[in-house]
Formats: sequence, structure tokens, C-alpha cells
Amino acid sequence: MAILHHNAYGKSCVRLTKVVRGPHRHELSELSVDIQLEGDFADSYLTGDNRKIIATDSMKNTVYVLAKENDFRCVEDFSLLLCRHFISTYSQVRTVTVDIRETKWDRIQAGDRPHSHAFVAGGSELRTCRAQLDSKSTKADLTGGIAGLQVLKTTGSEFSDFVSDRYRTLKDSHDRIFATSVDAQWTYGSQPSDFNADFAAIRTALLKTFATHHSLAVQQTLLAMGEAALAVCPSIQSIDLKMPNQHRIPFNLEPFGLENNNEIYVPTDEPFGMISGTVRRQ
Amino acid sequence: MAILHHNAYGKSCVRLTKVVRGPHRHELSELSVDIQLEGDFADSYLTGDNRKIIATDSMKNTVYVLAKENDFRCVEDFSLLLCRHFISTYSQVRTVTVDIRETKWDRIQAGDRPHSHAFVAGGSELRTCRAQLDSKSTKADLTGGIAGLQVLKTTGSEFSDFVSDRYRTLKDSHDRIFATSVDAQWTYGSQPSDFNADFAAIRTALLKTFATHHSLAVQQTLLAMGEAALAVCPSIQSIDLKMPNQHRIPFNLEPFGLENNNEIYVPTDEPFGMISGTVRRQ
Amino acid sequence: MAILHHNAYGKSCVRLTKVVRGPHRHELSELSVDIQLEGDFADSYLTGDNRKIIATDSMKNTVYVLAKENDFRCVEDFSLLLCRHFISTYSQVRTVTVDIRETKWDRIQAGDRPHSHAFVAGGSELRTCRAQLDSKSTKADLTGGIAGLQVLKTTGSEFSDFVSDRYRTLKDSHDRIFATSVDAQWTYGSQPSDFNADFAAIRTALLKTFATHHSLAVQQTLLAMGEAALAVCPSIQSIDLKMPNQHRIPFNLEPFGLENNNEIYVPTDEPFGMISGTVRRQ
Amino acid sequence: MAILHHNAYGKSCVRLTKVVRGPHRHELSELSVDIQLEGDFADSYLTGDNRKIIATDSMKNTVYVLAKENDFRCVEDFSLLLCRHFISTYSQVRTVTVDIRETKWDRIQAGDRPHSHAFVAGGSELRTCRAQLDSKSTKADLTGGIAGLQVLKTTGSEFSDFVSDRYRTLKDSHDRIFATSVDAQWTYGSQPSDFNADFAAIRTALLKTFATHHSLAVQQTLLAMGEAALAVCPSIQSIDLKMPNQHRIPFNLEPFGLENNNEIYVPTDEPFGMISGTVRRQ
Repeated sequence: MAILHHNAYGKSCVRLTKVVRGPHRHELSELSVDIQLEGDFADSYLTGDNRKIIATDSMKNTVYVLAKENDFRCVEDFSLLLCRHFISTYSQVRTVTVDIRETKWDRIQAGDRPHSHAFVAGGSELRTCRAQLDSKSTKADLTGGIAGLQVLKTTGSEFSDFVSDRYRTLKDSHDRIFATSVDAQWTYGSQPSDFNADFAAIRTALLKTFATHHSLAVQQTLLAMGEAALAVCPSIQSIDLKMPNQHRIPFNLEPFGLENNNEIYVPTDEPFGMISGTVRRQ
Repeated sequence: MAILHHNAYGKSCVRLTKVVRGPHRHELSELSVDIQLEGDFADSYLTGDNRKIIATDSMKNTVYVLAKENDFRCVEDFSLLLCRHFISTYSQVRTVTVDIRETKWDRIQAGDRPHSHAFVAGGSELRTCRAQLDSKSTKADLTGGIAGLQVLKTTGSEFSDFVSDRYRTLKDSHDRIFATSVDAQWTYGSQPSDFNADFAAIRTALLKTFATHHSLAVQQTLLAMGEAALAVCPSIQSIDLKMPNQHRIPFNLEPFGLENNNEIYVPTDEPFGMISGTVRRQ
Repeated sequence: MAILHHNAYGKSCVRLTKVVRGPHRHELSELSVDIQLEGDFADSYLTGDNRKIIATDSMKNTVYVLAKENDFRCVEDFSLLLCRHFISTYSQVRTVTVDIRETKWDRIQAGDRPHSHAFVAGGSELRTCRAQLDSKSTKADLTGGIAGLQVLKTTGSEFSDFVSDRYRTLKDSHDRIFATSVDAQWTYGSQPSDFNADFAAIRTALLKTFATHHSLAVQQTLLAMGEAALAVCPSIQSIDLKMPNQHRIPFNLEPFGLENNNEIYVPTDEPFGMISGTVRRQ
Repeated sequence: MAILHHNAYGKSCVRLTKVVRGPHRHELSELSVDIQLEGDFADSYLTGDNRKIIATDSMKNTVYVLAKENDFRCVEDFSLLLCRHFISTYSQVRTVTVDIRETKWDRIQAGDRPHSHAFVAGGSELRTCRAQLDSKSTKADLTGGIAGLQVLKTTGSEFSDFVSDRYRTLKDSHDRIFATSVDAQWTYGSQPSDFNADFAAIRTALLKTFATHHSLAVQQTLLAMGEAALAVCPSIQSIDLKMPNQHRIPFNLEPFGLENNNEIYVPTDEPFGMISGTVRRQ
């Protein structure tokens, strides 16, 4: 006999554009929101009895209604607001998890200053967050994050002295290109936090450390970047980093009688190294 | 002070085409392999000392070398083989995790029979597996799976009698389209298993149950599909199913003086419902 | 001074699911439709006067309304119907172009026969068509097509004796993998046509020729496939084929003391060869 | 009988990273290059005789070799250089077409100034160009361009007074969001040109006009943007613009007893309007 061991359901990729029309300038946020519920929903699985099911279409409506009815300054606040709504409104909900991804829009530079209501896409990077609230808790677990922060440095990166055995063909390198797409998630602790300031400080620390750290391994730079984030932001307790090694492979110019002095590379998407680590405040 | 709490690294998306050239026909497999290692690698993070690091480039080489040196009948066997290699070769490895995705290729029908060496792509679905081995274990944890199995039924699906409150605008439906992309992962237990036969039996059971189950909720069909998989395959202990509800929304023809008798729909990618569940043998 | 030299506008990617509910089985079609209009629309560009502009939102509505009001057996018929609608309804339209892509859905095999209303996705290939009608013509230009027909053969393909000079490093090969994603478009002439039968016959001819033609170059196989299509389908006048060479590169096993007897390859997405040709009936 | 009416072949998506290591800072360019040849290549199609075929693999090598052997300041120069190479080296080539796409990398801001060798991805936009050279010409046709320039304004956009008929449901709007992904290609004439300065000037003109033009229709803004580009750059003769209308649809808050004062929208990917136009210097 089979039993239903675990279940969850929700709505994913609810896309929202919110414009706050201030007297002098407009604020724009474009979000994609995922909501997942766990709780007393087994009857729907077992017999198709949906009386406790909040339709995922209603979850979608809720995102728009709450976005209208509430002022919020950042995705972290909106995710907490959504969590509290589902826990306080529906007694059958035991745990709610909200994930948000925010697109980066920069103001178009018009003359010597940023335009009041016109924007240009600010790259592939996303600001992310996850809030999770349990019906028995008063406080949600909250992580902030950044995803798809694409960076590259043309020097200041080495990789040498690693295991030599039958399976190794890669040579030691003391000057290679280091390219990655940083994916970071940090957990907020109990300290009060200005989420926008924290996000900006962590993003700057990650970029600056990537640029200036002399790298002996992707691993080493990852740890340095995590340490830098913890150093600039007392509100966070730990940071989880994923840094794919997006290889630029020196093109072999020897068959053509030429020497490749670290000038000509083939960028490749696959395969890629995948380096990860979690750094915690002690 | 910050500490390195967790670390892992590896190579992702190592793509392999292997051809086994039999006397009468060729066997083709196209795989994408991910390898992740955990173990005694902290020195690389802490000081850039890479002496215990197996380069991810060497992992890539290992995939091709082991594919050449070994006969294997399926992705499950190859993933186990890779796990055992890393644990037995490198004492600094504590845990190895191997994920494989296999593209579906069908033989081209040439005249009245399948061609010996020509293939046509068999859709977006992937056969997947994950093996994980610990240096202290003799037996790996193994899951088989299928991802991206896109299915749709034009009737035999209802959704009604769910929570009515301020946030609901969706009407009860007693005849709707049900479309999903099934993502299933099943765990193998201790029984001996013919992985190819098991995969085929589970895939058939999932498709047949989807087609014939009268659905009162995606949740209910998901459970029925999980039970069917467990019923046809004694080797597996549990199955985890993720079934996004890929909505086909009836187009409102009223403004044009027409009635939509469940004929004309708008397929949408976003947002989508996401229903999941784990079904276990008791 | 600048002048508006050319203009066109329309709606792209209008997605439609249509279900025809027969007494014994349902027919399913899922389409993505693009409509482009040229004509007397310059005022909208020059002064923002939109009085002759048919909103692209209205074009979208038209797709659903016409899908409801008309029986059609195939994308070719629907594209012609849309063309005639726009030309006959709006005098300001000079030329209308309709492109349709249809997803491949196969019936789920239930027991020993195809299910009446449940489907499984039939791969990445799309059936395509383009109809173009001018207000001064009585007859539309019509092309049928297939896109993304992914095929691979493990032998029966050579490439040798090509230009040898400083830029060549590739060796002659007398046995290589040949993989491609066929994109074909054929033009219908004046003969009456059963579009569904023609599509099926051309698809079969393309697959069979790919499988059985001994290839000395992708170019040669492309021509043979085009000739085969013209041979099986008297209604078409010409066929345009695009066949990217999706390389499988033999992995160099020499550093590991192994020989690669055409068994172990690296599939690559980029770069790819791109071979094209148009074959015409004389 | 069938004849080969047209043929072409080449290599697509040759990806190149080039680093120029100056004493004080590094210059980075990442390109994806397509090369297509037309000429005396029919024998390969007709009989598999490849003696006049330059392997697409050799074309790939050529990209890297010429990138090494030549200094070039921009993609336009590199595309011209590649064209001239193929025409002057191979007498069987009649026409060569080179397309290049360049990724946008911005320098990481380190302290108060741009870093000398560390970069962050500058968004989805690509700088593009196409050069085409005929063996009988002394001068190539050259277009510069930008693709994927994603912009959005929250006000200053109307759309009203368009055709009202049975198929219209969209209401007049005097304040809507205008979002698009600009794709522009401009043709260079006979005047001398500083391609980098021209690109920067055109990009700035496109952004500024988008931001400040009061839009009565996407069509009108497109023309204004094209005129602005021609005005700032005397070297170009014409500009071709494609501007998909990436709809933000006001979410209907009425069922929830709320009013949507242009605050809450649903961003959608499909369907989208597609507006295009070519603007020429008279």
C-alpha cells in the first residue's frame, strides 16, 4: 500500500509590475513571485475534495491585491507581507514559502541626471528573496539574495598545484581569465535591517572583492567574497555562494605558427565548474 | 569572524555521446553529467592550497575515460560507476553525487522497421538519475527519474468546490483541459532492479494513469500516478512528483457574440500552478 | 531630412489551443500565430493619427474569433483564412503575412490503441506555414514547412578532400556522426493539394533520405533530401532547406592511453556549421 | 527534374574572447561571429566533391588567427577584415557575409574609478554589425546595430482613436506603460566614420528620444527614434527599427472592490505587438 508522505502546492511566476507615481518621479518594480503552501491539503490528493484548497488562481489574485493595498519598499517586505497574509487568513495553512525575483531597471540618463520615469534594463542580474513562515512561529525565516551577477576579470587569477594523476590534462596556470555568474543568498538574523541598504552594500562588496582579490582558486575567492559580505552587513548571519566557473579556454594558435600570449580565448557554456560554499558568522 | 560552514565543488553539464557499434545495429546514448564532491577541500577556500583539489577539468576527462573503458546499459549504471571511481580513487572525497540527464532518441522508421543507425529526437523529455555515495557506505543512494514529460488531456478533468473568499474569481469547472510537464524521481530500495525495464514500466504507468484517471484536482491525479508507479515497479520505495498546472484559459468569446463551448483556449506559460507530492510504499 | 521608407506592424505569438470534440475522439491543435500588415499606415508613424490602425490587440481577438467560427483541417487553411479576412475587411491593408507554428502532439498509447483525448508532446519539431496575400491578388503565396526536426546518424557520413591550407586543422573523416536540426520550407504551386498528406509525405521523405543517403558532405545530403521531397509531392514547386551541422567531436583519448574507435564524442552547440540550399522543380 | 537553385554555407556562433593587455588597463571584447559564403560550391551538393569547400572548421580557425594577427578597434573593423580575407584568399568565393554580436561588459566601479581589468555584464543588449563583400566590389556593404536594448517608460505614452469594429475590445488609453526591446540596424554610407563614436551617439539618441518623446503610438516613437539617430550621425544613410510592444496589462482590481490607478500591471511575454519601420535620409 502506498501513502502520501509529503505534499505542497502553489503558484509560480506570478509577474507583477508596480508603479508608484510620486510627484517628481515614478518608482518601478517588476517582480516574479512564487507561493507554496503546506498544510491540511491531503483530502484533495486522496479523494479530490477541494474544500480546503485555496486555488492557485486565488493566490495569483492575492499578489495583485496586496500589491495594490500596501506600500512596500522592497521585495523582502512584500514577501513577509504575503507570508503573513496566508498564515493569518487560512487556518489550514501550516507553512508558507514566498520566493521573489526582481528585475534590475536603471533610470535612463537624460542630459545630466536620471530620468524621472524612463528606464533601461540593468542586466541579467536579479535581486531575490525568500520568506518562510510557520503557523506556530511569530517570525519568518528570511533570506535576501542576488542571482545572475555576471562578472569577469582578465587577470589576477591562478589555478595550480592541484592533483596530478592519470585523469589530469590541464596545465598549471598563473594567469587565467576568471568569469562567473554569482548566485548569493544571505540569511537575516535578529538585528533590524534596512534591506535596500543591505542589498546595495553586499552587492558592492561582492563586486569589489571579485575585482581586487588575487585568486589562487575560485574556491578562495568565493570565501573572500562571503567574508566581505558578512563584514559590511551586520544584519546577516550567513551567506551561501554558488559560483560556476565559466571557462574561457585559450585557443591553441600553435598550428598556425603563432603564440597565444593570453589574448585569444574560446568562451564556453558547457561544461562548467560549479563551486559553492556557505560562510557563517561565528 | 566568519567560518566556512559548508563547501562542495564539481563539474556540471559534461556532455557525452557514446555509440556502441554492434554488428547489426548501433546503440546511441547522449548524456549530460554533473559531478559534485564534498570532502577535505577547505584548504583551497582558506589559503588557495589546491593540493587536494581534483580539477573539474579532470572530472570531465574522467567521464569520457570511464565511458570508454566500461560497458554500461543505462544511466543508472554509469552514475554508480562514476561514484565508485571517485570514492575509491581519492581519499579526500567524503561524498560524491552524480546527476545524469539522457536525451530521448527514437530510431527513424525506415520502411517497416526501425533503422539500425539513424535517429530522430524523441521530444523534450529526459531520463534522469542521481547516485550519491559516501566514503563510509558500501551502497549508494540511487534515484531514477523522468523530467519534462509533457502531457495534455482535453477532457476528464474537473476543479470545483474550492475555497470561496474575497480573493477567488475562478469559477468551478467540470470540464477543463489538463496539461502538465511531469517531473518524477523515484528511489530504488534494496531489491534487484532492471533499470531499463523499470524506467519503461514507470513511464507507461504514468502516461496511462494520466490519460485514464478522471481528475477532480491535479493533486488527486498526481497521487494516482504515484500509486500506479509504485504498483508496477516493486524495486522502488517512493516516488516524488512535480506537476506544474500549465493552464489553458478559455478565451472569452462573449464580446463577439459567440459561445465558447470548451473549444478555444489561450495556452499560457506564466503563471503556473505547481503541485507536488511524495508517495511512499508503506 | 528623413523619410519613412518602409513600415509594417502586427501581432506575434498569438497562442491558440483549439479542441474539436468529435463523438469518438477529440482533435487537438496548438498554434502560435504571427500577423503582419503593410498598407496605408504612415499617418500613425508621422503624426500619431491612429484612425487607420487596426490594434494588434484586435488582431489577437481575430485569431480566436476566426478559430471559433471556422472549421479548418490544417495550419495552411487557417493561415489562408486569416489572410483573406484582413484583406477583405480593411481597405487600408495592402499586404498581409501570416506565419503559424504548430506544436506536435501525439496520442498517448492506451493499451493497444491511441487514446481518444490524451496526448504526449511529440518532440521539438514544429509544423510551420506562411501565407501572404496582396490586396490586388486573388491568390496567396503559400509555403508549408517543418522546423526543428532533430536527427542524427552514427555512421554513413564522410567529409574529406576539402581545401587544405594554413587555416585547416580538421582531418579527413570517412566515418563521422551526422547530426542536424532540419528546417525546411516548401512553396505550393497551382496544383490542388491535401496539405496534411503533403506534410506527412515530405516529412517521411526527409527522414528516410537522411537515414539512407550515404553522405559525402552535409551539402550533398541536403540536396538529396530536397530532391526526395519534390519527388513525393507534386504540389510543391521548390523547397528551401537549412541544416546546421551540429558537431559531435571525437574526444581525444590518447593522453589516457586509449584509442577512440568512433565511440566517444563531445556534443557541442556552438559553433555550428550552417548549410543551406534551395531546390526547385525545373 | 530538380535543380539546385541557390546555396550557401558557413560557420555560425564562433565565440571569441579577446584581451588587449595595455600597460594601464585591459580591453575586453567578447564576440559571436557568423560567416556565410556563396560561390562556386555546387559540386559539393551535386556529387559530394569537396575540393572547393573551405571547411567550416577552417572558418572557425580563421576567426581566431585573424583576431590574433590584427589590431581592431571595433566589431565593424573586424567584420570588414574577415570579409576581405575570404574574398582575397579563395577565388571560388563570390560573396561573403559576416555577422558579429558583441556582449556588453562594463568596468566594475572600484572605489571612485572604473577597474582596470574587472568587468560586470552590462545587460542583455548586444552591439551588432553585418558586413557583406562581393568579389567584384571594392567596397563592402556595412551595417551597425544594437539588439535587445530593453527600455520601459511608466507614462508619456498613449494609444487611442484606432479602428473600432467587431474585433476591438481594447479601450483607448491616454496613459499606458510603454516597454520594448529595441532592435536597430543602420547602414553606413560613403562618409568616413568613427564606428565607436557613432555607436555611442546613436545609442544615446535612441534612449533619449524614447524617454522624452510623448508617444501617441509605438509607430510614432519609432519614427522619432529613427530620425534622431540620423540627425546625430551623418555617416549613416538609413536605419531599420524593430520595436516589439511588450505589453504591461493593467490588472483588473474591480472584483476586489479596488481601483487600479495605473499602478498594478501584469507584464506579458506573449503575444506581443511588432512594430517596424525603415527611416532614410532623403
